[in-house]
Amino acid sequence: MKQFDCLLPKPAVLIPDSGTLRITTGFTLGLASPASRRTVSGASRFLARLAGRTGLFLTEPKPLLHVQPPQATLFLTCRRPGRLKLNEDESYRLEIGQDHAVLSAETDLGLLRGLETILQLLTADAQGHFLPALRIEDQPRFPWRGLMIDSARHFQPVEVIKRNLEGMAAVKLNVFHWHLTDDQGFRVESKVFPLLHQHGANNEYYTQEQIKEVIAYADALGIRVVPEFDLPGHTTSWLPGYPELASTEGPHTLETGFGIKDAALNPAREGTYTFLATFLQEMAGLFPDEYFHLGGDEVNGKQWSANREIQTFMRTNQLPDHHRLQSYFTQRVQALVSKVNKKMMGWDEILASDLPASVVIQVWRGKEQLITAAKRGLKSILSYGYYIDLMQPAEFHYRNDPLSLETELTREEKNLVLGGEAVMWSEFVSPENIDSRIWPRTAAIAERLWSPPGHCSPEDLYQRLDRISLHLEELGLTHEKNYQMMLRRLAGTARITPLMNLVDLCEPVKLYTRHERRDYTTFSPLTRVVDAARPDAKIPRTFRQLVGTYLQARQKGEKNSKPASEFRGWLHLWSVNHDALAPIINSSPLLHEIASLSADLSKIAGFGLQALAVLENEGEKDWPAFSYMQAKESLAAAKKPRGEVELVVVTAIEELVEAAERVKRQSETERHRNPSGAP
Amino acid sequence: MKQFDCLLPKPAVLIPDSGTLRITTGFTLGLASPASRRTVSGASRFLARLAGRTGLFLTEPKPLLHVQPPQATLFLTCRRPGRLKLNEDESYRLEIGQDHAVLSAETDLGLLRGLETILQLLTADAQGHFLPALRIEDQPRFPWRGLMIDSARHFQPVEVIKRNLEGMAAVKLNVFHWHLTDDQGFRVESKVFPLLHQHGANNEYYTQEQIKEVIAYADALGIRVVPEFDLPGHTTSWLPGYPELASTEGPHTLETGFGIKDAALNPAREGTYTFLATFLQEMAGLFPDEYFHLGGDEVNGKQWSANREIQTFMRTNQLPDHHRLQSYFTQRVQALVSKVNKKMMGWDEILASDLPASVVIQVWRGKEQLITAAKRGLKSILSYGYYIDLMQPAEFHYRNDPLSLETELTREEKNLVLGGEAVMWSEFVSPENIDSRIWPRTAAIAERLWSPPGHCSPEDLYQRLDRISLHLEELGLTHEKNYQMMLRRLAGTARITPLMNLVDLCEPVKLYTRHERRDYTTFSPLTRVVDAARPDAKIPRTFRQLVGTYLQARQKGEKNSKPASEFRGWLHLWSVNHDALAPIINSSPLLHEIASLSADLSKIAGFGLQALAVLENEGEKDWPAFSYMQAKESLAAAKKPRGEVELVVVTAIEELVEAAERVKRQSETERHRNPSGAP
Repeated sequence: MKQFDCLLPKPAVLIPDSGTLRITTGFTLGLASPASRRTVSGASRFLARLAGRTGLFLTEPKPLLHVQPPQATLFLTCRRPGRLKLNEDESYRLEIGQDHAVLSAETDLGLLRGLETILQLLTADAQGHFLPALRIEDQPRFPWRGLMIDSARHFQPVEVIKRNLEGMAAVKLNVFHWHLTDDQGFRVESKVFPLLHQHGANNEYYTQEQIKEVIAYADALGIRVVPEFDLPGHTTSWLPGYPELASTEGPHTLETGFGIKDAALNPAREGTYTFLATFLQEMAGLFPDEYFHLGGDEVNGKQWSANREIQTFMRTNQLPDHHRLQSYFTQRVQALVSKVNKKMMGWDEILASDLPASVVIQVWRGKEQLITAAKRGLKSILSYGYYIDLMQPAEFHYRNDPLSLETELTREEKNLVLGGEAVMWSEFVSPENIDSRIWPRTAAIAERLWSPPGHCSPEDLYQRLDRISLHLEELGLTHEKNYQMMLRRLAGTARITPLMNLVDLCEPVKLYTRHERRDYTTFSPLTRVVDAARPDAKIPRTFRQLVGTYLQARQKGEKNSKPASEFRGWLHLWSVNHDALAPIINSSPLLHEIASLSADLSKIAGFGLQALAVLENEGEKDWPAFSYMQAKESLAAAKKPRGEVELVVVTAIEELVEAAERVKRQSETERHRNPSGAP
Repeated sequence: MKQFDCLLPKPAVLIPDSGTLRITTGFTLGLASPASRRTVSGASRFLARLAGRTGLFLTEPKPLLHVQPPQATLFLTCRRPGRLKLNEDESYRLEIGQDHAVLSAETDLGLLRGLETILQLLTADAQGHFLPALRIEDQPRFPWRGLMIDSARHFQPVEVIKRNLEGMAAVKLNVFHWHLTDDQGFRVESKVFPLLHQHGANNEYYTQEQIKEVIAYADALGIRVVPEFDLPGHTTSWLPGYPELASTEGPHTLETGFGIKDAALNPAREGTYTFLATFLQEMAGLFPDEYFHLGGDEVNGKQWSANREIQTFMRTNQLPDHHRLQSYFTQRVQALVSKVNKKMMGWDEILASDLPASVVIQVWRGKEQLITAAKRGLKSILSYGYYIDLMQPAEFHYRNDPLSLETELTREEKNLVLGGEAVMWSEFVSPENIDSRIWPRTAAIAERLWSPPGHCSPEDLYQRLDRISLHLEELGLTHEKNYQMMLRRLAGTARITPLMNLVDLCEPVKLYTRHERRDYTTFSPLTRVVDAARPDAKIPRTFRQLVGTYLQARQKGEKNSKPASEFRGWLHLWSVNHDALAPIINSSPLLHEIASLSADLSKIAGFGLQALAVLENEGEKDWPAFSYMQAKESLAAAKKPRGEVELVVVTAIEELVEAAERVKRQSETERHRNPSGAP
């Protein structure tokens, strides 16, 4: 069933049938009438992608209207246009026979999801392209499957958003959470308060026309757009234009650093609420989604404590600490949101407030917040464990199930867990490398949120991620292609093989380590090796696997040199790579910071080869040269990150070295016992 | 003077000095006050690119205002903001010393041009990045240096336009000619005649907001935007919305094929002119440039001849043929353009009309039209020889000088030749591959139009194009990175080496050959090998050069095997490549069309190796195997394009084969004369 290895996310039910549906120039796509606008545009995009991938000059390159199912190779039918709101039906049913296929759904959203499935099923052999005959019945496990992009810390132009929306649609995500304001930038044009974007965005903001363009684009892809205006903290960018909102005197300037800042809106002034009421009303006219995200995270309360007026307000209102004050603020804001007919959403700090059942909590500080929310009767989505900016492997995110703690919850409470969101904070991403942080790892999260619970093997997951990664490229995503482009700039030449040999083995340091290493600002260049290197490095993963298989086989007493014959070539390549890379490093100042890492790689690869020789020559009389102590020293050195990247092949080489040392020691012990060498 | 090899276009005057200006984190950019908006944004972009390329965390990442020259590492000063119009001053003067640099200009446009020069001068050594000390005095040879992009045949989204504007600025081009309407699409939103874009664009058009966005973007880069509304031919897309403009009854549908179509507006109806007057008035409010391009090309007159009303009109107005009728139309349109305070521009067919001196003729059918225009006192720009859609080498375009026929013209007439435009028609380009047709070849045209007359060697040109090609990538251009992406899709895998080995040696067929091979429409997939392959293929160029050098040396009786040792490796690689590629081709239907080409390459490379063995073993007793007749046959077969691509290493291999055959024949003749083999 090899052709189903391509599905990501996996469908709920798949029943294979025998035979194939061949795709030829005569392929037609028919639509039941009346066809919704979303169906027509989705079908047209499908045909263009089908033609692009197959190279076929289709006789009918446009969807056919007013036809009956057997008149078209693929027939699409749904009952009604879907509404882009929570819990809308996205299910679909796909039947592929040897002559025809029918995709049916309750809504056109279901059709869009099903069309992506078909494109993933498309396969080729020597005879041409085909679809496997089968039946699929599919629907999402969770209704809220999102991706958040932070456009505030580093502005991400419209085309970045658009191509990522396409990527989302390809893996059946349905909520784009747009983090539009933060300390470093106010990224949405306001016509009622123009100084917000004029003084708060360094000229990098979305016009209202662009916002509408993105919303229309997302709508066509069946994706909701939930805007976030982060309040009352993360608000430095509001203040240069409207200092009256501030809790301090000022002067207020746009933040260029990162981390938790003190700025917080003044919750004690009635004017703050009047301002927000007007602002939210304007935004309610711009963003059609029923949910508005109002932030609520990381308020340190410093400015509130230092402001006499606010202190008085707290006493008058019996708000003993800044947490209670924030609760008060949150409740006021919730009322304002409600007044413009929207439902509020916020980071899990808002759980401290008394909130109506309509509110959605975005859980980020720990999974137990999901339980807390549910026990309080509040809806929630999971983002803890889905922070893709932290450079953890896809497998880690994949294992993170929103309902893995389900035993504690009743069935009704479980239903309050709506799904989750991958979260892309943008301290360290530019339009050049943001895609490589989002894709393909977000596809693993997408499967977790769409498919029935359960886990596939890491091999299965990564194989499917590799495949979807290629497909995502046709949508304009740059996660693959910008890697070599960035290496060309780093090397100052198109001849990047030795540099690539090194960076292929590197991952950016994980979690919040980069912040500790250097003082980053919004102006810091994001063109270094760490910015080109990618999480989930592929060659190291394979290397580790091969080494693991090899050593396990040895441990079981089996002699299996096949994996070694595969990874030996890599060790050879790495052991001589520094000689090739050194001249490039020498003429590229940007590479100086990884010069010693490159040297370390060649050293430890050399020791890896020594160790392998020991392991492969076990029992023979003359031991190959093997310097365990020096190897250990080099391995320890190689583990240290340089330029905020780390070599992720060190431990695997270390395992080889340790195994070799064990073999040698054991054999020496034996020789000691039996110095003649006789058996 | 190696560091000046990077300048493209070359400056008018460059006087090297000794020493270098080192770029460190302390680098500052100071602006004389008052600084224009364009200066500030240009300086900010410069700093971001400088930081990106050097990886430096600049202490002052923003331009400094209100400073004096010695307080900044680089100081920018100009007299006034430039106006974006013909003949505006773009000159600049750059002095780089060991401690400071000063860039001065009459206008901020000159500053932008100079900043690009500085970024091209940026070099690195083991100590870090630096600028060479020097003095440059630079100004353009021609005031009109353009790139035309056809957004009509295949729509090109805003981001495609923006990144190409950045590319233009990098090589000092200053006019973006935007071909907005044609038979296949009406790509600009009209608020007065909304059915134009609603019925004429398949939903792919620029909103007026987007047009403004592009104009503002271009303005910041010092680039004029000249819109083209092609009239009276190439107008099929106007007619579905406004059939009253047509010269036939209809029904009118959007054109999906290419080539010269019959549709032409009805020049006999007064309503046509009223419509155009209103439309042009709307567009005049949208596009600020003083020039409007009104097309005028390729009217075949068929619809006019077949329309009785039009025939009557021609008789009444004494217009004996359709050329005169078009002249009449052109003059009416010119008057309308003039009425909205714009100057008219058109393709060289409009030379048939009586036109005022303000008109600019775009010469495309032959260079003699430049002379005709000048003799008539009309301004002109050259595009004949700059049709970059025709896939000719950069060198060809580079040799094409607008004033190479200058002897026929007086000094005043010469001044009427304003410059030229590279022209990118879009029958065969998608947003994925358009950049690879524009860049880097357009940089060669840019040098022709900016730099003093004269030619550099092809080696010099191509070396500089290779370098600028890397720099252009930092602007988001995809000419390099989409190549491998497209190959990955073709191969259905990330392991593309054997496919790349082949496609690296292929160029798309040239001139108008593709139209003859297959019936293309706007729906045809542009994802085939021919769409990934690029003009001016680099490896073949080097290969041809090495073979040439080798054979020339032999002919002179010198024994120089060095080039052979370099190209022998390639021949080896190619000779076995088909074995590696065949399995990929087998599972990728899109590659079937080049299967025999791949086989042919391996065959002729094998014969190339045979020939080389003969040449290298001359004089030895035993000839290596060499089958001349079979080689000839295979070479002839390999010359045939397949899938609209051609192998561009065939003739070089043929030269090797012919040389080997000569050697062999000569030696056999000698042996015949002297059968003993004695000298």
